[in-house]
Amino acid sequence: MNAAMSQKLKHYLQFSDFNAEEYAYLFERSRFIKAKFKAFEKYHPFADPDRTLAMIFEKASTRTRVSFEAGMYQLGGSVVHLTTGDSQLGRAEPIEDSARVISRMVDLVMIRTFGQDKIERFAAHSRVPVINGLTNEYHPCQILADLFTYLEYRGVGADGRLDPGCLKGKVVAWVGDGNNMANTWLQAADLLGFTVHVSTPSGYEIDPAIAHVRSDCYKVFKDPLQACVGADLVTTDVWTSMGYEAENEARRKAFADWCVDSRMMKAAKSDALFMHCLPAHRGEEVSADVIDGPQSVVWDEAENRMHVQKALMEYLLLGRLT
Amino acid sequence: MNAAMSQKLKHYLQFSDFNAEEYAYLFERSRFIKAKFKAFEKYHPFADPDRTLAMIFEKASTRTRVSFEAGMYQLGGSVVHLTTGDSQLGRAEPIEDSARVISRMVDLVMIRTFGQDKIERFAAHSRVPVINGLTNEYHPCQILADLFTYLEYRGVGADGRLDPGCLKGKVVAWVGDGNNMANTWLQAADLLGFTVHVSTPSGYEIDPAIAHVRSDCYKVFKDPLQACVGADLVTTDVWTSMGYEAENEARRKAFADWCVDSRMMKAAKSDALFMHCLPAHRGEEVSADVIDGPQSVVWDEAENRMHVQKALMEYLLLGRLT
Amino acid sequence: MNAAMSQKLKHYLQFSDFNAEEYAYLFERSRFIKAKFKAFEKYHPFADPDRTLAMIFEKASTRTRVSFEAGMYQLGGSVVHLTTGDSQLGRAEPIEDSARVISRMVDLVMIRTFGQDKIERFAAHSRVPVINGLTNEYHPCQILADLFTYLEYRGVGADGRLDPGCLKGKVVAWVGDGNNMANTWLQAADLLGFTVHVSTPSGYEIDPAIAHVRSDCYKVFKDPLQACVGADLVTTDVWTSMGYEAENEARRKAFADWCVDSRMMKAAKSDALFMHCLPAHRGEEVSADVIDGPQSVVWDEAENRMHVQKALMEYLLLGRLT
Repeated sequence: MNAAMSQKLKHYLQFSDFNAEEYAYLFERSRFIKAKFKAFEKYHPFADPDRTLAMIFEKASTRTRVSFEAGMYQLGGSVVHLTTGDSQLGRAEPIEDSARVISRMVDLVMIRTFGQDKIERFAAHSRVPVINGLTNEYHPCQILADLFTYLEYRGVGADGRLDPGCLKGKVVAWVGDGNNMANTWLQAADLLGFTVHVSTPSGYEIDPAIAHVRSDCYKVFKDPLQACVGADLVTTDVWTSMGYEAENEARRKAFADWCVDSRMMKAAKSDALFMHCLPAHRGEEVSADVIDGPQSVVWDEAENRMHVQKALMEYLLLGRLT
Repeated sequence: MNAAMSQKLKHYLQFSDFNAEEYAYLFERSRFIKAKFKAFEKYHPFADPDRTLAMIFEKASTRTRVSFEAGMYQLGGSVVHLTTGDSQLGRAEPIEDSARVISRMVDLVMIRTFGQDKIERFAAHSRVPVINGLTNEYHPCQILADLFTYLEYRGVGADGRLDPGCLKGKVVAWVGDGNNMANTWLQAADLLGFTVHVSTPSGYEIDPAIAHVRSDCYKVFKDPLQACVGADLVTTDVWTSMGYEAENEARRKAFADWCVDSRMMKAAKSDALFMHCLPAHRGEEVSADVIDGPQSVVWDEAENRMHVQKALMEYLLLGRLT
Repeated sequence: MNAAMSQKLKHYLQFSDFNAEEYAYLFERSRFIKAKFKAFEKYHPFADPDRTLAMIFEKASTRTRVSFEAGMYQLGGSVVHLTTGDSQLGRAEPIEDSARVISRMVDLVMIRTFGQDKIERFAAHSRVPVINGLTNEYHPCQILADLFTYLEYRGVGADGRLDPGCLKGKVVAWVGDGNNMANTWLQAADLLGFTVHVSTPSGYEIDPAIAHVRSDCYKVFKDPLQACVGADLVTTDVWTSMGYEAENEARRKAFADWCVDSRMMKAAKSDALFMHCLPAHRGEEVSADVIDGPQSVVWDEAENRMHVQKALMEYLLLGRLT
């Protein structure tokens, strides 16, 4: 038996894997863990016994890589970083066998891969928790970071604590591709009670069958400007996500009007925030004056990936600590 | 002077580098170290002073990579992981120079490469112990894990300790390629007193000049079923090992009858175990009902790579501790 | 705010970034840190709070990789190793954005890249110190190691301490390519008061505009033998540095007479040392009898990369400790 077996095994494969109460805990815990980091206070829950994270990347990454790896070190743990060159899931051996073997040796596994089915099959045969570090369908760690960042800016209650309840009734404008980020925003809206205004070019719509959410948690707009009206948060992503490079030219044409610019930000609430999971292409999905402007919180958002993932890993391995 | 220089320098380049008495120590030590892991007890012999392992991979790897790297962390040490992209042995500089430089900076080196001569030349100019993590000729760490796994299942003495003496007279059936695994099984048989029944397709025979063993430690069988008769352990490997991919089609034809199936397992002793160093190709070198059946111990075998290698690294760096 | 923000932010992008007094400190500190290593004494200034180094490699490396990574572990810190496969500076996003994001998550960044402008732009937007691990223009960490090695051999004062003042008036012969190493030697000479005798083939001259140094800190010689006359140190580099492989054939012809051999070493002072930043190609830029002979200190030089870089990282993160 190894690490995670001492409690009921939990995975984090899509946003809907946790409930609202668990998210409330994770947001507060992220804040605690971030404060330790900012104060240079050592916090090593993964040092004794030793905890090791295996990271399996089938798509390249900078942010996911650095945030998980540095985060693990900050918790006193270790990391084994596997890339496609070392191990291509499902090629040399069935994914199930890789899961059986790797989960005998480490305490936690993060996977960035293509189809969600791959990570589901891995998790089904893993002895240790598995985290979705991005699939074609979902990107739950990013939305976890985005919501935490929103709460840091707009959701500190009178008692000084984060108030996830404040998300109820809020409006998030998603401008761009109906991709894994969009799907995950829908799952978050469904669970936490806000609404997503989705505007995608024709041919790049969200597929509600992927998000599996109630139809009243999102509204579809043809015009991206209309999607931004009254929004508390405006957010977008690159026009061409990893794995879709072959469609690049077609996408540049189709997405030409889906650039978050100052006009769209003006349509949103006056205190609306702008987020982007990065990397950003200024002049394509976002104008320079927006991403580099006062409403943009993208650098905090990027840093928060690391802190929320530390809270997530701690929760998966050690359970609730407060 | 650095780490390993404080004692006589030992390497582990082939199975015959240690004697039976040293193996008895390593098996018992592996058990001690595995028990610490299973009990979540921190055991950090490599934390003070710090010990760092350099891993040099010229062939891809999952199991060797994760088992050495996670194992090193579990002992409190650190790892530098070099792949061919970073450093191709003998290309940018003579292997001897790489050995001189790398062994000035780390405490231990593991190499997965092609020809055994490369690792021998590296070791000859290294200041620190060198471990064979697989060459075209030998794979001693895997056999170390296999024997330890066998002893865990069949070799616990009345006093509760492992009894390597029980290996004497046992029969191991090797069904398949006359490769590095086969050579290493022969060396183990020669040293520890058991017999290997080898059955390979024509054209893929073992080369006794590589194993360098007495001719009475193995018997060659044309018929793989006959090789399994009376065996205590049946084991095999993929038809096409890394580096031989170009021969894939020819091998699929030649090896068609060398599939370990229930018929072969029935020919073996009723309590025979099945092992495979993985990755496995069900329907090729082993049938699904065998590898996924009750006699198969392949997942324990995979995990044990990590534990025996921890014992090995501890022995090479710190000598005998009990 | 993270790690390095608690003091004035310093980078190490070229040799001229520090003054002579800072170098005197770094040499002495390197000696202290090396002594700890040699005595197996744990020294962990980067363990509490945790310090993490991100290494970004756009060119392959063995020595730089192992020396920084093992060095960081020896100081109790952690490392995230990014290669071009993970992150190509300036491709997926502007370098400035990479700097903003990465420097939110780690405490220190080392970059090996092509143009010096890339590392300058990264540093300008980084919250944490940035170290030049080799650019087309400069290689300050190597010269730091070379000077420390020289002082270990020839600069221990009567009081047992290193005496960097002894470098004044010394002569370093640079035989070969007018490359990043040559430029950095010029900067060191300018700052520390010695003279570089430079001899390069026609067409491979140094460009004084890159080194930005006073013209009296170096002398140019057509004949490499003449450059070695009276030298205290003779040093060279491969004929074809990384990134110039396409010019390999032309270079082999042009550099044929720029091989440091015993004739050149005899022209130098009788106690002259020979250095080479490695990898070395015996029979090209240096003869075997020189690099493997008694005046060569190349293995100590290689090991010292690690120790001076530990001192450098400590200084950048923690400031002056004595």
